[in-house]
Amino acid sequence: MSRFMTDSLKALAPYTPGEQPRERKYIKLNTNESPFPPSPKAIAAANEAAKELELYPALDGGRLRAKIAEVIGVDESSVAVTNGSDEALNFCFKAFCSKSSPAAFADITYGFYSVFAGLNGVSYELIPLKDDFTLDPNDYIGIGKNIFIANPNAPTGLSIGLSDIEKIAKSNPDNIVLIDEAYVDFGGESAVKLLPRCPNLIVTQTFSKSRSLAGARIGFAAASPEIIEDIYRVIYSTNPYNLSRTSIAAGIGALEDEEYTRCNCREIVETREKTARALRALGFRVLDSSTNFLFASSPKVGGKELYERLKAEGILIRHFDAPRISDFVRITVGSQSDMQALVGAIENILELK
Amino acid sequence: MSRFMTDSLKALAPYTPGEQPRERKYIKLNTNESPFPPSPKAIAAANEAAKELELYPALDGGRLRAKIAEVIGVDESSVAVTNGSDEALNFCFKAFCSKSSPAAFADITYGFYSVFAGLNGVSYELIPLKDDFTLDPNDYIGIGKNIFIANPNAPTGLSIGLSDIEKIAKSNPDNIVLIDEAYVDFGGESAVKLLPRCPNLIVTQTFSKSRSLAGARIGFAAASPEIIEDIYRVIYSTNPYNLSRTSIAAGIGALEDEEYTRCNCREIVETREKTARALRALGFRVLDSSTNFLFASSPKVGGKELYERLKAEGILIRHFDAPRISDFVRITVGSQSDMQALVGAIENILELK
Repeated sequence: MSRFMTDSLKALAPYTPGEQPRERKYIKLNTNESPFPPSPKAIAAANEAAKELELYPALDGGRLRAKIAEVIGVDESSVAVTNGSDEALNFCFKAFCSKSSPAAFADITYGFYSVFAGLNGVSYELIPLKDDFTLDPNDYIGIGKNIFIANPNAPTGLSIGLSDIEKIAKSNPDNIVLIDEAYVDFGGESAVKLLPRCPNLIVTQTFSKSRSLAGARIGFAAASPEIIEDIYRVIYSTNPYNLSRTSIAAGIGALEDEEYTRCNCREIVETREKTARALRALGFRVLDSSTNFLFASSPKVGGKELYERLKAEGILIRHFDAPRISDFVRITVGSQSDMQALVGAIENILELK
Repeated sequence: MSRFMTDSLKALAPYTPGEQPRERKYIKLNTNESPFPPSPKAIAAANEAAKELELYPALDGGRLRAKIAEVIGVDESSVAVTNGSDEALNFCFKAFCSKSSPAAFADITYGFYSVFAGLNGVSYELIPLKDDFTLDPNDYIGIGKNIFIANPNAPTGLSIGLSDIEKIAKSNPDNIVLIDEAYVDFGGESAVKLLPRCPNLIVTQTFSKSRSLAGARIGFAAASPEIIEDIYRVIYSTNPYNLSRTSIAAGIGALEDEEYTRCNCREIVETREKTARALRALGFRVLDSSTNFLFASSPKVGGKELYERLKAEGILIRHFDAPRISDFVRITVGSQSDMQALVGAIENILELK
């Protein structure tokens, strides 16, 4: 740390991303990437765009903005294209929350919410999930705070229904309610269809999971045109060209191949259910997942130990050393053969117990 | 604007980027892009990387960070890789400036400095350039503020020498001094070599101009390892994967072809000098440029009118409707044929006067 750093930055604890080891080849089940390559259409579009990299990208995401709007069924003015959905989340904390207009989110949810709150000087309330890790919608009714809900939630994988989201949004009309749908394509239901009825609702999604484009850094927010205008105000005050030309092109290519995405999601869901059954047969408690990962704990081996022993076997999963969930591990659903290797390795670890 | 926006955002005037028209084809001399395509090595590397876009990019810029360090001759710990150099500038305002630790920069310089100050709640002093638009280093000696100097400056194109920068840095030891070298490859001298002697110095550069990669959004900051650690603290609190896989690869490819960059810069400098002579012959005042653009005014036609009439002829240049410089236009140095077309169009406009 330099002696020039401001006090507010000193107080900030940055987000801890999952490991991205370079030293050896792992079966990588720790950052919820897709086991499938991007659509050939996405790759071809990125390659075509690379020829013109001497020119700045389109402002506002250009044709990608229009294509996202078409695919999710809203007007282009209701979409803001961002550098990953993290950027959309950060900019919503920046634009709509403050010390005097606090945020609220679950005690166990995406770790970046508290980081973005800290970064932007936003006060926030942590609302505990129930003992079974489900979210009680009643905890959010009429609380008069800006609400951030990951649905499905991470790292639990659990989801809530649209009728609950609608009630929460309508009972907090003077605050924004942001539904973070990073994992929605693996079994959740999108709140985009609530937008016409809920002018305070913001829905964010990412291309990093179901669309196999984590490396391209593409996300978006969908909301009323007024809210989207505010988000672009932050984008134009930060980095007006927030997405590269190749990323914009890859995103359009992926959206032109929705059948590929749907087919991959179906296979991931099948593999997820098969893996969940196998882990339960080994005595694990496995939460019902609507995502591309499983959140699980074993009565025989602690979360940290399981993470460490699998890493020694060449398999990376994620362990969060945090209250209430330190017994659990989060396991990305990879390819069928990856998951067979995982289950086999866990069997060996348990047998030695 | 939505009714949910915070007061601090309401007060902010976003940056106005140069036009990126989609409706017709222009000779585009308004955003200082390169007239040359990226190096074939950059394109090939981006194409290779597109195949693995399902995986997150390397944290910290990965091999690009190491390659930049090698090329500019510093240790890897002295480089932070950013999504364009705009991100580096923004994060330095965020990390090192505040209401009580103000910034200072010229009244006529890159328009984003005041936007980033506003975005981050930083107070700042505007220090007027002299009447001839040169920067007087004495204005910055011992002022006890965080100093941002574009060198060469935009939109004037003028530069100051390293001995002046060293004096400024050493006379403000408790503040950072940031030298924004977006245009350094067209005739400036880089302050990177001062880093060992000036622990409060930060140098930023971009791949958008000399390296023909505006569309890839790549920049970096070079400074002491402690300052770089602070910048990464902001990156990891904002968007840990700030560059896409294809951008990281394209950046490495470009740096593996420095001869291509140098050759393009030489040609741009030749074209610049030829164009400056032609404009002076037409009665223009043209400032001495160390960049890939010319800042010029005519006694016969106002800046706004010249911009509008050239636009009608299919040529886009940049006009800033701002105090002291509204008579001027900023003209990117494009290809030789682009500049012949420009000079021809200006001749026609002046003849009709």
